[in-house]
Amino acid sequence: MEKVTVITQILNANDQIAEENQGLLKNHRILALNLMASPGAGKTSLILQTAKALTGRARIGVVEGDVASRIDADKVASQHIPVIQINTGGECHLDAATVQKALKTLPLSEIDLLFIENVGNLICPVDFRLGEEIRVVVASVPEGDDKPYKYPGIFTAVNAVVLNKMDLAPYVDFSFDAIRKGITSLNRKAKLFQVSCRTGKGIPAWADWLEAQWRSKNKSGIAQK
Amino acid sequence: MEKVTVITQILNANDQIAEENQGLLKNHRILALNLMASPGAGKTSLILQTAKALTGRARIGVVEGDVASRIDADKVASQHIPVIQINTGGECHLDAATVQKALKTLPLSEIDLLFIENVGNLICPVDFRLGEEIRVVVASVPEGDDKPYKYPGIFTAVNAVVLNKMDLAPYVDFSFDAIRKGITSLNRKAKLFQVSCRTGKGIPAWADWLEAQWRSKNKSGIAQK
Repeated sequence: MEKVTVITQILNANDQIAEENQGLLKNHRILALNLMASPGAGKTSLILQTAKALTGRARIGVVEGDVASRIDADKVASQHIPVIQINTGGECHLDAATVQKALKTLPLSEIDLLFIENVGNLICPVDFRLGEEIRVVVASVPEGDDKPYKYPGIFTAVNAVVLNKMDLAPYVDFSFDAIRKGITSLNRKAKLFQVSCRTGKGIPAWADWLEAQWRSKNKSGIAQK
Repeated sequence: MEKVTVITQILNANDQIAEENQGLLKNHRILALNLMASPGAGKTSLILQTAKALTGRARIGVVEGDVASRIDADKVASQHIPVIQINTGGECHLDAATVQKALKTLPLSEIDLLFIENVGNLICPVDFRLGEEIRVVVASVPEGDDKPYKYPGIFTAVNAVVLNKMDLAPYVDFSFDAIRKGITSLNRKAKLFQVSCRTGKGIPAWADWLEAQWRSKNKSGIAQK
């Protein structure tokens, strides 16, 4: 019984801070995404391609979550995008408190869309709200079409699935129908995008959807900021 | 302080059961591998290819760990290999107690090499000993060459790294020298194998090494069993 109590308290503390983050982001008319995926599915590449596609339409900011290293933050910073790197040490997910610290350092008045790139992991991140409006999982073609069946929690929790590395489909055993069936069996509402961050294919549709989400949350749009 | 105490107790309890597992496996002259990787790196494919390569040389058994589904166990069973599926629910790793239950069901006297396929995750499994002699991480080419820098814990802890999906190297940005440098900077002793489970390339060298590990642990070899 005691163990359950402790876990509940931790979750509640996290949710409280996540609500504070959400309030802060709303005040700045920022739409925040919690971007989750396996290691190496292409989260950072998707952020960079989306930023390119939305140039002049929406301003991007990034929180990078990794167990170790600042490889991803350096990639993002090299494109002149504001970014904060969080290293979790051994933790397998970001939490609201560490994201809150990052938000205090970012130039929020210069950001419209905030990508919070979670630690590469298909299990742990789903239990921790960070203050985001939208949750997205990036699945990649070489990981296989069975991932929704093996990791149902994350595919159930998201607003959208971005299926990356479509350019590798000819070289691996992968059925788009199988993964679509797996996703819709768990989550009928999730939007599904097929992209290749390597070739850029499919990025415009995803970027348009994201911009529309941001505009619908802030009816007056970027001109009002 | 209280939280730290609880965590220590859990780890000790796990280690105790892991030692019991190790004793049981030793009595049966079984070499057990804890096989870890990101989701979709090819752990099950590697098990199937290794079993094929070792036909007539060593008998394989498998414990399959997944959050949900029995997809992997069905694949293994279809090749007439003894297998037990563990579903962890939400847990991001196997632990010694669940593996112990699996060992009670497997035909241990008919197994020489036991693959314990952990949950797809590069972070959590490393903290939980299961009773294995050898720890292996499967990294796959499309995940990228920066994984050792981002997930140093697992690359530090293993006896061998199997780099899978080498057949995809021509189609992605991947430097073998970069990943080798990352691995050796953390772990000079780890053996490194380049394989393609799709084409079978590189499997013989890996299977030979594994058989040699098993024989060196059981000097008298399979004939004595």
